[in-house]
Amino acid sequence: MKKYNIGIVGATGMVGETMLRILEERNFPLNQLKLIASTKSEGKVYLFANKKITVETLKRDSFQDIDIALFTAGGSVSKEYAPVAVSSGAVVIDNSNAFRMDADTPLVVPEINPNKIYSHNGIIANPNCSTIQLVVALKPIYDEVGITRIIVSTYQAVSGSGRKAVDELMDQTKKYIRKDEFKPDVYPYQIAFNVLPHIDVFENNGYTKEEMKIINETKKIFDDNSIKISATAVRVPVLNGHSESVYIETKRYISVEKLRKLLDKAKGVLLVDDINKLQYPLPIMINNCDDVLIGRLRNDLSNINGINMWIVANNIRKGAALNAVQIAEILINRDVC
Amino acid sequence: MKKYNIGIVGATGMVGETMLRILEERNFPLNQLKLIASTKSEGKVYLFANKKITVETLKRDSFQDIDIALFTAGGSVSKEYAPVAVSSGAVVIDNSNAFRMDADTPLVVPEINPNKIYSHNGIIANPNCSTIQLVVALKPIYDEVGITRIIVSTYQAVSGSGRKAVDELMDQTKKYIRKDEFKPDVYPYQIAFNVLPHIDVFENNGYTKEEMKIINETKKIFDDNSIKISATAVRVPVLNGHSESVYIETKRYISVEKLRKLLDKAKGVLLVDDINKLQYPLPIMINNCDDVLIGRLRNDLSNINGINMWIVANNIRKGAALNAVQIAEILINRDVC
Repeated sequence: MKKYNIGIVGATGMVGETMLRILEERNFPLNQLKLIASTKSEGKVYLFANKKITVETLKRDSFQDIDIALFTAGGSVSKEYAPVAVSSGAVVIDNSNAFRMDADTPLVVPEINPNKIYSHNGIIANPNCSTIQLVVALKPIYDEVGITRIIVSTYQAVSGSGRKAVDELMDQTKKYIRKDEFKPDVYPYQIAFNVLPHIDVFENNGYTKEEMKIINETKKIFDDNSIKISATAVRVPVLNGHSESVYIETKRYISVEKLRKLLDKAKGVLLVDDINKLQYPLPIMINNCDDVLIGRLRNDLSNINGINMWIVANNIRKGAALNAVQIAEILINRDVC
Repeated sequence: MKKYNIGIVGATGMVGETMLRILEERNFPLNQLKLIASTKSEGKVYLFANKKITVETLKRDSFQDIDIALFTAGGSVSKEYAPVAVSSGAVVIDNSNAFRMDADTPLVVPEINPNKIYSHNGIIANPNCSTIQLVVALKPIYDEVGITRIIVSTYQAVSGSGRKAVDELMDQTKKYIRKDEFKPDVYPYQIAFNVLPHIDVFENNGYTKEEMKIINETKKIFDDNSIKISATAVRVPVLNGHSESVYIETKRYISVEKLRKLLDKAKGVLLVDDINKLQYPLPIMINNCDDVLIGRLRNDLSNINGINMWIVANNIRKGAALNAVQIAEILINRDVC
């Protein structure tokens, strides 16, 4: 079996470290694993399959001999270095927002549009975390009865903003309890015991960039501009695991019983939906979970084609690191790189 | 000016204590204030306008000489004792779910349907907290352009479940930080650093009672069964202040600019909506606030008559205690009791 040289750019971040763990868990056929980060992480050592790997600083010549470069160091790093990696011969799987909406960049969720991978021009984009769990959950319904409209309100964990945000929530919480003063840093306001209807920056149309990502990326992944989508993205004081309250309208009626059967056999989905046993998805369930959890399935009482549901997933794994590794797995199985 | 004898049943709970504070703040014309609770609070002493009031145990003869009885001790206490209070000659303003949907019980939010107060048969019902803030925010829009549909996802604070729940969130949070074990009590699962898509009990149709309250009470208060309403009620680790992500469809188009002007002059509403200054409603803003805060106003990009907004209010004050006292004020100003 062919083995590959993989580079992770942003290896010391939460998503980068999780990529490392997932490559190990899934026995990715590795020849060489290169951990790349900014100068401030240089020399940091990670264990991978019982071997030590030392973090290297990102440079223009970092991508010599790299087959696949997993980028997760933010949009500006991707914009500058992804083209460098591509011209060195690597295929880039980019977790940032930099190329997602480019017409010639495939935006891929393996459960939905794996074939798009083969049309890449060097870069394959990984969607936004809150988009991935939404489309994985909705895909079986979209295929079965069509979806005309999606209205989503999110409950997003601080891990989506990186390790500094996780530290900020814990630190603020401790200080709040001790009645100590604190000053918000990652977020504009206190996040402990609060909720913020504001994720990423505001655009001129009144929506945040996070909300526009959900709207635009969902349409691109389903390859369907006719779906009406509205989104409200909200940060909640949860450490890890994004939740979404999702309302959809389908083209044709489907009963909740049929919906359950459909989702029960769907790829990447785990149905947690038994209200008699108080079973529904929770962020605290997903720490080592790769599936998108779906529950609280119910028909809208005022609209026969309306369905409500509650979707929870691990935003660091399926929402970022795992989805990227899954894309890499499809890439190498078909030996395109 | 006539002065009244007021009784608070459930005086030692969070809502009861807030009623006491609000009666004092608003200089309610009191002759006598009777604080009534269960035996376990008997003898507890409160200060009201610098005078000590000792809590009495609820008995069938507690309502002699009472003009208005404010009930906030849960549905079963209301069911048993509200009729007793009425037959003693008191008017009951009931904060529980016991009588809200009864055809001959007015369900009142003073900003919306104050006139319903005068048709009472002894009991006036105070709506559910998450309903009150929703209808106060939507009333000006309903009157101006009509509302055909409401889809709401809530972010509800633990104070809505009473003092034990506030203690549980704080206690769990401390134990989580110290890595101590804890066992959920008020809620079926951990609430610290988690969100629960489950408030009140589940009904057979898959909705929770809290969700059905929002649906049914909103229709009753607007006196309009044609509005299509769908709700998802979610508990979040916030101490006080309910938030709501609300999507509406109006009969006629209204621009966001016109909407802002409309809400800016509306009763009981405070517009907090300037994304350029990162101004939007937050639960941490509402501790001594009586207004319903509205922000994140924006038209749905996929539906000209669709509007998204974010609504936050103090669930203990406007969502419960204040609304009840406002009803009492209307009652006495018109001298109906």
